Amino acid sequence: MTESHMPVKIIPLGGLEQIGMNITAIEYDDTIIVVDCGLSFPDDDMLGIDLVIPDVSYLIENKDKVKGLVITHGHEDHIGSIPYIEKQINMPIYATRLTMGLIDYKLEEHGLLNQVKRKVVSYGQTINLGNMRVEFIRTNHSIADSAALAIFTPAGVLVHTGDFKVDYTPVFGEMIDLQRFAELGRKGVLALMADSTNAIREGFTPSEKTVGKTFDHIFEDNQNRRIIIATFASNVDRVQQIINSACKYKRKVIIQGRSMVNVISIASELGYLNVPPNTIIEIDESVNYNDNQLVYITTGSQGEEMAVLSRIAASIHSKISIKPGDVVIFSSSPIPGNEKAVYRVINELEQKGAAVIYHDAHVSGHACQEELKLIYALTKPRYAIPVHGEYRHLKRHAELAREMGIPKERVKLIKCGDILAVSEQTFSVIGSVSAQGVLVDGLGVGDVGNIVLRDRQHLSENGLIVVALTLEHGSGQLLAGPDIITRGFVYVRESESLLEDCRMVVEETLDECLMRSTTDWTRIKSRIRDSLGEFLWKRTKRSPMILPIISEV
Amino acid sequence: MTESHMPVKIIPLGGLEQIGMNITAIEYDDTIIVVDCGLSFPDDDMLGIDLVIPDVSYLIENKDKVKGLVITHGHEDHIGSIPYIEKQINMPIYATRLTMGLIDYKLEEHGLLNQVKRKVVSYGQTINLGNMRVEFIRTNHSIADSAALAIFTPAGVLVHTGDFKVDYTPVFGEMIDLQRFAELGRKGVLALMADSTNAIREGFTPSEKTVGKTFDHIFEDNQNRRIIIATFASNVDRVQQIINSACKYKRKVIIQGRSMVNVISIASELGYLNVPPNTIIEIDESVNYNDNQLVYITTGSQGEEMAVLSRIAASIHSKISIKPGDVVIFSSSPIPGNEKAVYRVINELEQKGAAVIYHDAHVSGHACQEELKLIYALTKPRYAIPVHGEYRHLKRHAELAREMGIPKERVKLIKCGDILAVSEQTFSVIGSVSAQGVLVDGLGVGDVGNIVLRDRQHLSENGLIVVALTLEHGSGQLLAGPDIITRGFVYVRESESLLEDCRMVVEETLDECLMRSTTDWTRIKSRIRDSLGEFLWKRTKRSPMILPIISEV
Repeated sequence: MTESHMPVKIIPLGGLEQIGMNITAIEYDDTIIVVDCGLSFPDDDMLGIDLVIPDVSYLIENKDKVKGLVITHGHEDHIGSIPYIEKQINMPIYATRLTMGLIDYKLEEHGLLNQVKRKVVSYGQTINLGNMRVEFIRTNHSIADSAALAIFTPAGVLVHTGDFKVDYTPVFGEMIDLQRFAELGRKGVLALMADSTNAIREGFTPSEKTVGKTFDHIFEDNQNRRIIIATFASNVDRVQQIINSACKYKRKVIIQGRSMVNVISIASELGYLNVPPNTIIEIDESVNYNDNQLVYITTGSQGEEMAVLSRIAASIHSKISIKPGDVVIFSSSPIPGNEKAVYRVINELEQKGAAVIYHDAHVSGHACQEELKLIYALTKPRYAIPVHGEYRHLKRHAELAREMGIPKERVKLIKCGDILAVSEQTFSVIGSVSAQGVLVDGLGVGDVGNIVLRDRQHLSENGLIVVALTLEHGSGQLLAGPDIITRGFVYVRESESLLEDCRMVVEETLDECLMRSTTDWTRIKSRIRDSLGEFLWKRTKRSPMILPIISEV
Repeated sequence: MTESHMPVKIIPLGGLEQIGMNITAIEYDDTIIVVDCGLSFPDDDMLGIDLVIPDVSYLIENKDKVKGLVITHGHEDHIGSIPYIEKQINMPIYATRLTMGLIDYKLEEHGLLNQVKRKVVSYGQTINLGNMRVEFIRTNHSIADSAALAIFTPAGVLVHTGDFKVDYTPVFGEMIDLQRFAELGRKGVLALMADSTNAIREGFTPSEKTVGKTFDHIFEDNQNRRIIIATFASNVDRVQQIINSACKYKRKVIIQGRSMVNVISIASELGYLNVPPNTIIEIDESVNYNDNQLVYITTGSQGEEMAVLSRIAASIHSKISIKPGDVVIFSSSPIPGNEKAVYRVINELEQKGAAVIYHDAHVSGHACQEELKLIYALTKPRYAIPVHGEYRHLKRHAELAREMGIPKERVKLIKCGDILAVSEQTFSVIGSVSAQGVLVDGLGVGDVGNIVLRDRQHLSENGLIVVALTLEHGSGQLLAGPDIITRGFVYVRESESLLEDCRMVVEETLDECLMRSTTDWTRIKSRIRDSLGEFLWKRTKRSPMILPIISEV
């Protein structure tokens, strides 16, 4: 590797502040590598939007430099946008085995499997991409095969933790490779980019294995009852532990929910899940067993409206209905924003007689403060760049880094789109690129923007009044209408007199326009909007969208 | 009081499952009394709705029996609907002094102050209402002057705790009158209706005074910084403790937010707040002081979009802007559903350089499990009727009651509208009345229902396409149009060809109708909706609302 005074550029295109959409470009001279390629779910004010993907216009402009996409692990917020982005920039993908299994499934769904080069990487392996080398380092997280990355650039070594925790007793595989972090630290780490999710939590995150013990206790205490467990489809280790408890207590396992079925089948095929023969059965076979011989594993742990558990709770699932005595376990904790939906599902389940356990059967997959300190102690980076978190997490992480002895000026909170230049001598934001999320609605990518969203907001709060009228060409005389049609405004039946008054207001406005010889449609429409809007506000204190439509014959 | 075998009827018209809208009718023979009269805030799916008030049609049908409205305390979920309901049924109101002060303010706003009889009641005082007597008993809660009620009916004594906690060291006034609960228990309590809010929390709720100590520590640690504290306007004791710390640390207090200013002025006037002279100053006087001589008390602790703290965080407050070094305290915890809004405000404040404290500066106003057990131990009720909570809270409360020795068949979870008949011999639901919430949108009360909400939902997710056309009377020939107008669907500029294709689809459909001599407008409209809907789904995977409008000339 050549010595150099040129800095490497770190450009996050997502993953900061808006958690969910993790993607970062690392650029040095003629080489760009991309780390992760996730998606976000829409905020409450993005009405009707299905998902949000990153804006990669900077990568498109620099297509020739982009040497590859390296992925830390197989969660949606790190791999979800791959099919959308690969359609725009065809990059080879590098990932560990399970991660690649999940990516393959996605690419196949989008018909892209044969168009994208992919290479499975093992822990400890290093790949060469232009003037950089990337080494995959074993970590622990709530999905197997998670990796941190050591990115060897001519300007120095960057360590990116990915999402991680320190689990000394993981369910699958081995503990995080702390020795390698130490070794890299000894040799000199230029910058550490570490997971901030739990930076506001003190102490250590408990081992995933503790959840297994909790399952055993619950199975022990409820030997006469049917058990239903909702968890994240991607948490293969969690599913493994449910299967372990099921075997121990001689229960058959039924898997429900599309993503749960997919992940489990991919994980089993690749050997990440150890399922004794005849453990998993189809739902239609459940009639052959008593309730206390069954455990269901389902999606819906976040109260998602269309997921299996929510449909069971609402009594709209075709094959499973709650019976008094059932035990339902949320093996999860609500992601901020989902609390109310989760509590609604819990209330519905309890109303139908289930006992719901929604504490204590979950641990986080992210490092708490003591784990972060450990990584700082091992890698001793020159610079700290907190990543993956809301601002309040990033800020607390920055404070931790300073507590670990990194001088204030070597700790930086950056924003999406910032170009951060990093070398032994340099550590500063030298510019920015476009990095706003791109909204996806149905098949439309980016065709819904602020104006459309503002209209949806307006319509959702106040509804709509259409005023339709036909005018005579030339004279401007009213030939038909005004017809008043409303949607989402008031009960029409109970508001006939109100709508009749609306008609009169419009007629008066038209008379006035005629008298003043106003024949310009734009002006007539705007006069109708004003007079009707004013009338309705006075009468109802509401502001429906008013849409005047004029035809001419 | 006469002995009787006739049961008393308990009819909750709100306050169960949907927390927020507390109102219960208690009926015996020719007497109905109403306990509390609160409002709810709309659920996420009640688009555009401002608030939800109770359906009191049962009370209106039995107007002559209604003897009075007794109020436990001055929170919105217990008094908020009073002006709306008093317009429908004029009942005299009974409440303690501060509670009545807050009610008076509401009635005055609605111009009802001279039309409603009101009587201020003291703790220990009993009022006669038809064949019942109601005694107000001192409790503790997050607002002063809270009361439990002992309702003496011919069928026996009902004890209703209102919202309460056991605070041995309250900030204002005295501790809850546990002796009176015991005395009532000794003589025989027929049924206990107790607060379920914290029934899933173990232990005891800490005293309100502990928050005062926290404030002192924060003031001590931040003597050189400006301090801004957001809390619930109605928590007068919390405000008192902020004022105490302010005085101790020689700071002036600035009050911001309409509800905060109102409650503080009512509470001060009535003597519930002890403010040394020259402590509270106007915001315009702040220029005369250094930052470290000031503390602001504001609304917005739930992240409410238009409240003071949210406007400060978003840099749209006209007089206060965050400076690096400011300390902002959330003296509150997020009500489920508000978490994301609260975190957004925290992130915005920290981005502007404030240090935000959002844990540890709050205690609940509701009894935890040990306090509930204490009330059961003192009152030893024959029957337990958990109130005030989501189903999961009510259910845990019912379990607690059984743990306290009440037989299973004497503990009942009831629903809004249930008529529960209670006497020594009877404890069963004997019927139900209408008790759904009534939606308020602007000035409209009850004119927005399911159809309107469904339309708002549809419009909010997919937007709208209006297809306008003019047909010749008789022949059905197209004279003008079809014109396609969209709102909330796609960017029109970028989708011109899509809209042109829509026009062609409509024209083809019209040609087909003409060929088949279909002249019925309803059928033509439905054919347009079908063909255009199908076309758009195929092309965009979206389903905008399609509104065909036909004029005839």
